[in-house]
Amino acid sequence: MIPTEVEWVGVDWGTSNLRAWGLGKCGEVSFSHVSDQGMSKLTPDAYPGVVGALLSRYLASTASRIDVLICGMAGAKQGWMEAPYLDAPADLETLVDGAVVPTMPDARILARILPGICQRASSQEDVMRGEETQLLGLATLWPGFRGVVCMPGTHSKWVQLTGRRVEHFTTAMTGELFEVLRTHSVLRHSFAGPIQGPHRDDGFQTGLTSGIEAPQKLSALLFKVRAGSLLSGRTPDWCAGFLSGLLIGAEIGALREWIAHSEIAIVGDAALAELYARGFTIVGGEARIVDGVEATLAGLKAARLQR
Amino acid sequence: MIPTEVEWVGVDWGTSNLRAWGLGKCGEVSFSHVSDQGMSKLTPDAYPGVVGALLSRYLASTASRIDVLICGMAGAKQGWMEAPYLDAPADLETLVDGAVVPTMPDARILARILPGICQRASSQEDVMRGEETQLLGLATLWPGFRGVVCMPGTHSKWVQLTGRRVEHFTTAMTGELFEVLRTHSVLRHSFAGPIQGPHRDDGFQTGLTSGIEAPQKLSALLFKVRAGSLLSGRTPDWCAGFLSGLLIGAEIGALREWIAHSEIAIVGDAALAELYARGFTIVGGEARIVDGVEATLAGLKAARLQR
Repeated sequence: MIPTEVEWVGVDWGTSNLRAWGLGKCGEVSFSHVSDQGMSKLTPDAYPGVVGALLSRYLASTASRIDVLICGMAGAKQGWMEAPYLDAPADLETLVDGAVVPTMPDARILARILPGICQRASSQEDVMRGEETQLLGLATLWPGFRGVVCMPGTHSKWVQLTGRRVEHFTTAMTGELFEVLRTHSVLRHSFAGPIQGPHRDDGFQTGLTSGIEAPQKLSALLFKVRAGSLLSGRTPDWCAGFLSGLLIGAEIGALREWIAHSEIAIVGDAALAELYARGFTIVGGEARIVDGVEATLAGLKAARLQR
Repeated sequence: MIPTEVEWVGVDWGTSNLRAWGLGKCGEVSFSHVSDQGMSKLTPDAYPGVVGALLSRYLASTASRIDVLICGMAGAKQGWMEAPYLDAPADLETLVDGAVVPTMPDARILARILPGICQRASSQEDVMRGEETQLLGLATLWPGFRGVVCMPGTHSKWVQLTGRRVEHFTTAMTGELFEVLRTHSVLRHSFAGPIQGPHRDDGFQTGLTSGIEAPQKLSALLFKVRAGSLLSGRTPDWCAGFLSGLLIGAEIGALREWIAHSEIAIVGDAALAELYARGFTIVGGEARIVDGVEATLAGLKAARLQR
């Protein structure tokens, strides 16, 4: 870490975690930092201190101003300072114009928080925060991309993107459903024991196919986890694979009309993206994958160049 | 309570609660009892004591034998003593033949636990415990009924019933999804505050219609709860109604092909059954309602007459 080379700092401030990069003049990363100081653990008045600590070495050695560009949940109503949503269809060319500037105790720090995007049309109501920056990153990494962007996660986003324009999007609660069902529902009995094992992939494939074929039966298919472990001695790893495959399959099956004749990009963690890519193959789509962290960093860099 | 009139005792032993009736020679109820001593709170060796306490007054005044006929989760693997499942299609005429007889410390008590029903065909795997007794009750209360029985609850059952024969069934995790999402997911933020209120019914109707129209989009529609409270200031009661309506609607929408040209019975709690009946009306079905407790009692009586 060579703090003097830091020209500005990019921050991805999520619900659970914080990820920051120190960036040089030409966009080179001079340091990176990950912590668990996500929005869910912070009160609004705690944010300036977290940023200050992040920059402490730098601030100790200089008198010059430093930019901090932030995306994600820090801009939520329950975060640091609300950055009002842009309305979809939204132009990412001017994303930074929607940023808000919280007051910092140390005047050398200029912090800006990027906005999320919302969709207000009745029955289409939806929100994203953080993904808009990844979308800008994707549009920068793959100039001219037009198609569907699938962003798997706690709340998966599916986005119709044309260049730097977000046309339309929707959310599926896939990751969160997996977690609450695995932890809190009757299905938890089916996961007692190690959930990594030789049958996980078999369970995943079975669940994936079932979910894609009959997404409308999700609530009934979920119970097959329980019935499978009671009646057929399905192992915890098989059940975990089945549940994951079923939820991913139902997500893809429900939205399969989006991907007809479209280019597909998957933005996310490599292992999870691979699982989604298997699902797209089943419905006749071919997806290219971009690492989610890479997309975020590319998006922060692109947003900073907008001003 | 006139203990000497008790000829036998019927028990509905659920996961959370226990419900018992003292019954006379002609099936008249001489006492009834409800407690929270459900399966989830008991180890196997605790059951005889619970039954003994239930019968203590009776046992103090007589030397004769007393029958106790039990349905529900007491017969599960993790309950008192496993009563192996009957296989569907299953004949309820001989339900009692599948009962198991646990050893009782007091030899005057003859306890029998009725079996559940399972479905083993691959991808149709499913189980029920307790509902089989309600189905026998329904078949007794409405002789000759052929059609679909919807049994709403934590794990809703849909059953194709012909007289006393269970042809086929499936489970939807509707009630449990409502609970885990309301309590543990990001949607919980949308329920902060009173969830009974003037907008609940409006939210319910909106959710019900959405779920019936697009059950395959359940996972995406769930997020509308969150988006609705963030973007349109939906109140906690509206959100609770919407979530409930959406889950019930998706259940009905997914299984609507079952109800074409079929008689429909709803067996369950009156208020919940009314909500389902509204959904059936939307898809062109007309449902008759039987109270769930009444069906259980009728089923226990019918099962006892089998031997």
